[in-house]
Amino acid sequence: MDWEKIAQETSVKTDSKIILLVMDGLGGLPVQGKTELEAAQTPNLDNLAAKSVCGLTDPVFMGITPGSGPAHLSLFGYDPTKYILGRGILEALGVGVEVGRNDLVARGNFATLKAGLIVDRRAGRIPTSENEQICKKLNDSLKEVNAIKISFFPGKEHRFVIKFSGEGLSDALSDADPQKDGQPVVPTRALSPEAENSALMVNRTMEKATELLKDSPKANTVLLRGFSGCPSLPTLNELYKLNAAAVANYPMYKGLAKLVGMEVLDVGPEMPELFDAVEKHYKNHDFFYVHVKKTDSAGEDGNFEAKKKAIEETDGYIPRLLSLEPDVLVVTSDHSTPSLLKGHSWHPNPFLLFSKASMTDHVIRFSERECSHGYLGRFQAIYAMPLMLAHAGKLKKFGA
Amino acid sequence: MDWEKIAQETSVKTDSKIILLVMDGLGGLPVQGKTELEAAQTPNLDNLAAKSVCGLTDPVFMGITPGSGPAHLSLFGYDPTKYILGRGILEALGVGVEVGRNDLVARGNFATLKAGLIVDRRAGRIPTSENEQICKKLNDSLKEVNAIKISFFPGKEHRFVIKFSGEGLSDALSDADPQKDGQPVVPTRALSPEAENSALMVNRTMEKATELLKDSPKANTVLLRGFSGCPSLPTLNELYKLNAAAVANYPMYKGLAKLVGMEVLDVGPEMPELFDAVEKHYKNHDFFYVHVKKTDSAGEDGNFEAKKKAIEETDGYIPRLLSLEPDVLVVTSDHSTPSLLKGHSWHPNPFLLFSKASMTDHVIRFSERECSHGYLGRFQAIYAMPLMLAHAGKLKKFGA
Repeated sequence: MDWEKIAQETSVKTDSKIILLVMDGLGGLPVQGKTELEAAQTPNLDNLAAKSVCGLTDPVFMGITPGSGPAHLSLFGYDPTKYILGRGILEALGVGVEVGRNDLVARGNFATLKAGLIVDRRAGRIPTSENEQICKKLNDSLKEVNAIKISFFPGKEHRFVIKFSGEGLSDALSDADPQKDGQPVVPTRALSPEAENSALMVNRTMEKATELLKDSPKANTVLLRGFSGCPSLPTLNELYKLNAAAVANYPMYKGLAKLVGMEVLDVGPEMPELFDAVEKHYKNHDFFYVHVKKTDSAGEDGNFEAKKKAIEETDGYIPRLLSLEPDVLVVTSDHSTPSLLKGHSWHPNPFLLFSKASMTDHVIRFSERECSHGYLGRFQAIYAMPLMLAHAGKLKKFGA
Repeated sequence: MDWEKIAQETSVKTDSKIILLVMDGLGGLPVQGKTELEAAQTPNLDNLAAKSVCGLTDPVFMGITPGSGPAHLSLFGYDPTKYILGRGILEALGVGVEVGRNDLVARGNFATLKAGLIVDRRAGRIPTSENEQICKKLNDSLKEVNAIKISFFPGKEHRFVIKFSGEGLSDALSDADPQKDGQPVVPTRALSPEAENSALMVNRTMEKATELLKDSPKANTVLLRGFSGCPSLPTLNELYKLNAAAVANYPMYKGLAKLVGMEVLDVGPEMPELFDAVEKHYKNHDFFYVHVKKTDSAGEDGNFEAKKKAIEETDGYIPRLLSLEPDVLVVTSDHSTPSLLKGHSWHPNPFLLFSKASMTDHVIRFSERECSHGYLGRFQAIYAMPLMLAHAGKLKKFGA
């Protein structure tokens, strides 16, 4: 797939505007005959579907359930099997940690060490408030090791993220985690020669942290895994000459957007604030990635009704997006999260593209099964970006 | 994509016959609810669709608007992202210049030089007749430079094609064109060491041409860009054991066909002559590429009615093709040219395959939207060739 090369050759800067509305985890499965989207009252999305071209997308390929990272990369036009985002980086983005070119991050657990053995890898799932206190203590007392700056960021319960900042760091490091209880402490090992100094520094950091925590009853040591440097992705501007903005309430999606070079707009935690932000900044950008989280959260909770309500709530904002008169408006999701399965799934995403330059089809109801009859057919989500750019007049002819 | 390798291993020579009718730029967009093809009266194509298997093709991939080169290569079974045809070669083919293995071609502009600056890159868009006179003068006086044969071919207004013929030429040459007015003359540079002699020869040619034109008021120098050698493609015979014929009115398509090793039949400028030629030569070939240009020209002009009429005119010739009883008849286009957009577009092509060995589907009207419900679904145009060969019994089993 030469899409990146073709994109760089054919994309042109124009004044046209694209809005990509991602209803996270939108796709579902039938419960009593209807999916969440089919059960929801969505007059605005249905009206829009009637004037749009529809289809179904596979985030990676049929059968593959993607994490949020690959699912979004694909929607932004990046081959999700080529650009792999480490667990550490996703965890860091999820708690709002900024990761730069000289940073190394890892996922951490506070754990219980006894007589040289890790007896509880989760330190009895200490309360999040205790986690926050411990991280504060470590940040106050353990600022630097071997000239590398150290920062701890609390997550939920026993989880945290650690960031190492400095020159010459490598993420070619094995997990410093025995993976099960009752095993001895495992230091990290360098997986390539240039990671030797990083391994020494990480192990020294772990020893110092354990020393500082020695009087805690449960959380008296740390485990680290999923070491990741900052992934190097070409930006949306480099690939497509876009000046893109991300409009999202949650850190993970803001972080993903930043990785591909989007400007992350300042947005509060509620759904209306997403649409306020698009309106406020509409003149300053030519591409808006708008992320609605509620649909996915409700699906993860297995809450069919809550997901249906989240869909209906989002439907109410469609007229506000349309009143901006974007050249292209796409409504889709990154992956499916059927409440029936209480998690991400491999099922394809409904996809709708509204533009003056689009073929219209017979789809008059925005749903998984109606979209399967759309003119776009079933396609890999990586083609969403070429389709959006083409319909916005941002791709010139390929070849003579 | 291992298609080329699989084709060479599995294709067999048979007596069966394939006709590929390309209605250039056939796909359109709705105007007052109907596309050109939907608005046209096409009783013969509709009858044929009812007996055929249908689908939609993407010439390159979704969202990509192809030039005529990549769009045709794909239909002939060549990966259009692997075989790139330079601008110079397409321009040369377009004005009917034959390009052989020892030739180098480039696009040229006559331009106006004043006090060392290119003051008008288009020489005031001189009349085509003046262009023809200038080319004649240059061809008479500038036949050879450094043992390389030089030929000038007039195009429209200030445009021409130059062909260099001889041993050891390289197309690794930068454009000899300042790209905008008011800039000094730019000689070509060798982009790799083996192009050094070619660069010297090209610059010497430009100097000599400028010397010969010094008394012309406007067209007193030449600019050259898009240097291209003859692209090296495996032939249809090498890949598929086909003895293919091209039946086209326009030089560009004859040239493209010659690049893939087709025999170009002698055909006059009118549509009926295409079908006369197929009938006349029917026994001598096993693959006929028939190219109708009018549909594309009308689309490029933004003339919905003219495109509709061109479709209806072509429809009238379908019975003549059917009476030859080909084993496979495909009707499709290379790319879409919606009159709404007045140019090539990224929208998929309607595709119809008639053969005794094909599944039939429910499509009874040949149109973009009806074809989207066809049994073939939506697929990349590069699969048209394997489908044609298979339905004609020209591909044996792959593997045991």
